[in-house]
Amino acid sequence: MWKLPIGIEELNQEAIKLASERHDQLTKPQGSLGLLEEIGIRLAGIQGETIPTVTPCAVVLMAGDHGVTEEGVSAFPSEVTVQMVLNFLAGGAAINALARNANADVHVVDVGVKSDIPVPSETSNRLWVKKVRYGTDNMAKGPAMTREEAEKALQVGWEMGSQLHQAGYKMVALGEMGIGNTTASAAITAVLTGRPVQEVVGVGTGLSSQGVQHKIETIQKAIRVNSPNPTDPIDVLAKVGGLEICGLAGLILSCAAHRIPVVVDGFITSAAALAAAKIEPLVRSYLFGSHQSVEPGHRIVLEALELQPLFDFSMRLGEGSGAALALPVVQAAARVLREMATFAEAGVADAAS
Amino acid sequence: MWKLPIGIEELNQEAIKLASERHDQLTKPQGSLGLLEEIGIRLAGIQGETIPTVTPCAVVLMAGDHGVTEEGVSAFPSEVTVQMVLNFLAGGAAINALARNANADVHVVDVGVKSDIPVPSETSNRLWVKKVRYGTDNMAKGPAMTREEAEKALQVGWEMGSQLHQAGYKMVALGEMGIGNTTASAAITAVLTGRPVQEVVGVGTGLSSQGVQHKIETIQKAIRVNSPNPTDPIDVLAKVGGLEICGLAGLILSCAAHRIPVVVDGFITSAAALAAAKIEPLVRSYLFGSHQSVEPGHRIVLEALELQPLFDFSMRLGEGSGAALALPVVQAAARVLREMATFAEAGVADAAS
Repeated sequence: MWKLPIGIEELNQEAIKLASERHDQLTKPQGSLGLLEEIGIRLAGIQGETIPTVTPCAVVLMAGDHGVTEEGVSAFPSEVTVQMVLNFLAGGAAINALARNANADVHVVDVGVKSDIPVPSETSNRLWVKKVRYGTDNMAKGPAMTREEAEKALQVGWEMGSQLHQAGYKMVALGEMGIGNTTASAAITAVLTGRPVQEVVGVGTGLSSQGVQHKIETIQKAIRVNSPNPTDPIDVLAKVGGLEICGLAGLILSCAAHRIPVVVDGFITSAAALAAAKIEPLVRSYLFGSHQSVEPGHRIVLEALELQPLFDFSMRLGEGSGAALALPVVQAAARVLREMATFAEAGVADAAS
Repeated sequence: MWKLPIGIEELNQEAIKLASERHDQLTKPQGSLGLLEEIGIRLAGIQGETIPTVTPCAVVLMAGDHGVTEEGVSAFPSEVTVQMVLNFLAGGAAINALARNANADVHVVDVGVKSDIPVPSETSNRLWVKKVRYGTDNMAKGPAMTREEAEKALQVGWEMGSQLHQAGYKMVALGEMGIGNTTASAAITAVLTGRPVQEVVGVGTGLSSQGVQHKIETIQKAIRVNSPNPTDPIDVLAKVGGLEICGLAGLILSCAAHRIPVVVDGFITSAAALAAAKIEPLVRSYLFGSHQSVEPGHRIVLEALELQPLFDFSMRLGEGSGAALALPVVQAAARVLREMATFAEAGVADAAS
C-alpha cells in the first residue's frame, strides 16, 4: 500500500509553556484576551517559537468536478466549477475580496476540473494545473475514482504544501470549488463518523426541500453501491469523495508536517480535515476552526475533529470564505504575542492581588 | 436644559434596496454570505451609498478615572489608567496590536484622567487632551460629577466625532480606559434597564468572588445615595457614570449624525451606547456589535440595544480590543459589495432554479 511521507510531530511543549508565560507578563489582566490567547499559544506550539509568525498567508482553493451532479444534487450546473475558477483567477469572487481583506494570496489548484482551464493572461492569482483526471465518476453508480487516483490527488495536495512551505508561507487557509462537493462531503462524513446520512445533508448552495431529500437518497445509494470501508479513509475518499477533497486532505497533512497552521473553512474542507485526521490523528493540533456554516454536517465534522468554530455568520458559500474571514483573528493572536509590551517594559503596575 | 446638536436621521432605504439587489447579482448563491451580507447592506443604509466605504478606520479610546475606586472595586490600582494611556501612546497595549491588525489608527482622548499625561515625544498614536476634570468623585458617597460636567464630557465626544469626520474617517471603533469603569457601567446598566445590580456585575479585570459581592454592594449604595432618574440618561451618566463614558456617548451620537458606522466593544462602550440610545433612539441603526464579553452585564446591554455580537472569545479586557477584532469583518462586508464581480461581469451561470 502506498503511503504519504508523513512526519507530523506533536506540538512543541516548551514553546507552549514560554508563550503562556509571556502572555502573563503582557500589559493586560492575565487571561483577559480569552480565546485569542489560546490561539496564540497553540500557534507557538505549532511553530516551536514563543512568538509565532503567521504571515504571509495563502488561501489555497482546490477545485474538482463531481460525476454525481448528473443525479441533480446541486442547484448550480457543473459548468460553474470552471467558470468560478476563472472568476477566482480574475479576482472577482467572494474569496478574492476576503483574501485581500486578510492580506492573503490566492492559489487555485486544478486537481480535477472536468474541462481544461484557459488561464487568463493577466492575473495575480496563481493557477496550479495538477489535474489527476477530468472530474470524478458518478458515485451513485460506482466508485468516484480509483484508489490510485485518490492517492495521486492526495499527493498533489502534499506537494502543494511543500511548495507553499518553500515559498515562505506561514499560514494556510483552505478553500474549494466543485459543484456537487457538499454531496461528496456528506457521504464522507456519514461514513467516517457513522452518523445517518439525513443528519449530515443540507441545502448546499441552495436546494429546495425536495432537492435535499433527493440528495439524501443519492448519497445513501452511493454508500450502498460502493461499501466504503470506514476504517480506511483513502478507500472512503476514493469511493465517495472528490479529487479536490483528496487534494485538501493531502495539503492539510503536508502543512502539519511543515508546522504550518491550517485554517479550515466550511463543510467540504472540514470533511477533508476529518479524512486527514483519520490518516494521521496528530494533524488535529495544527488545525483552526473558522466559522460554523449552515450545513448541518459541518457541526458534526467539527465535533468529530474537536474543533471550535470562531463565529457563526450563517454562511454557506465555501470557497474558503469563512477561513479567510478568520485569518485576521489568527493574525491578531500572533500580533499580540509579538507586539505587546510587558508590564516591566511599559512601567505599568500589575494587579493588586 | 442644554441639548446636544443632534441631527441623526433614519437609514437611507434606497441605498439599502440597491445594495440588497447588488448582493443578489454577485457571483455567489443568493444570501450565501449570511450576516456578512446584512452588515454590508446596513453599511450602505448608514452611508447612503450602494457601495459603502469603511476605510480609514479610527479606534477612539476615551480615558477617565473613577473616584469609586477608593471603595476597592477594582483588581488594579487607579494609577494604571494613566500608565495604560502612556502604553497606548507608545503602541504597546493590546489595542495597539489589534488596531494595527485592522489598519486602524488609535486616538486617545483624556476626558478625565486624574493626573496630567506626560506626552511622549515620539508617538504615532494621537493624544487629545480634553480633560473635563481630574477623575470623578466617589459615587458611593455622592454624584460622580455634576450635570454640567457630564454635558461637557458629552460635548467632548460630540466634537471628537466631528473632528474624525473632518479627518476623513469612515468607521469608528470604540475603546476606553478607566480603572473602575465596569463599576460605573454596571450602575448605568442597572438604572437604565431596570435590572437588579447583581445581574449586571462581573469580575471586571479580575476580582475575587468576595470582590464581586463588595462591588455589588457599592453600586447598590451609589444608586441609593444618588437616586438617578432612569428616564433622564444625562442624570444617570452624571450621578453614577464616568467622564470617559459620557465622552463615548457623545462620540456615538456624533458619529451617527455624521453617518459614520460605530463598532462597540465590551461592557463599558455598550453601556455608553445604551445611554446614547436613550438620548436618541435612532442611534442604534448606526451601531455594530463586536464581541460578547464575559461581563454578565454586557449581554444585558446588548439585548437592550438589540445588537448582535459577532463572536464570543471569552474576552474581558476592554480598550476596544473586541471592536478592533471586529473591524476586519465589517471591512470585509464592504469589500464584498465593492470588489465582487456580478454573474454577468464574470460570465458565470446563475442557479438552475
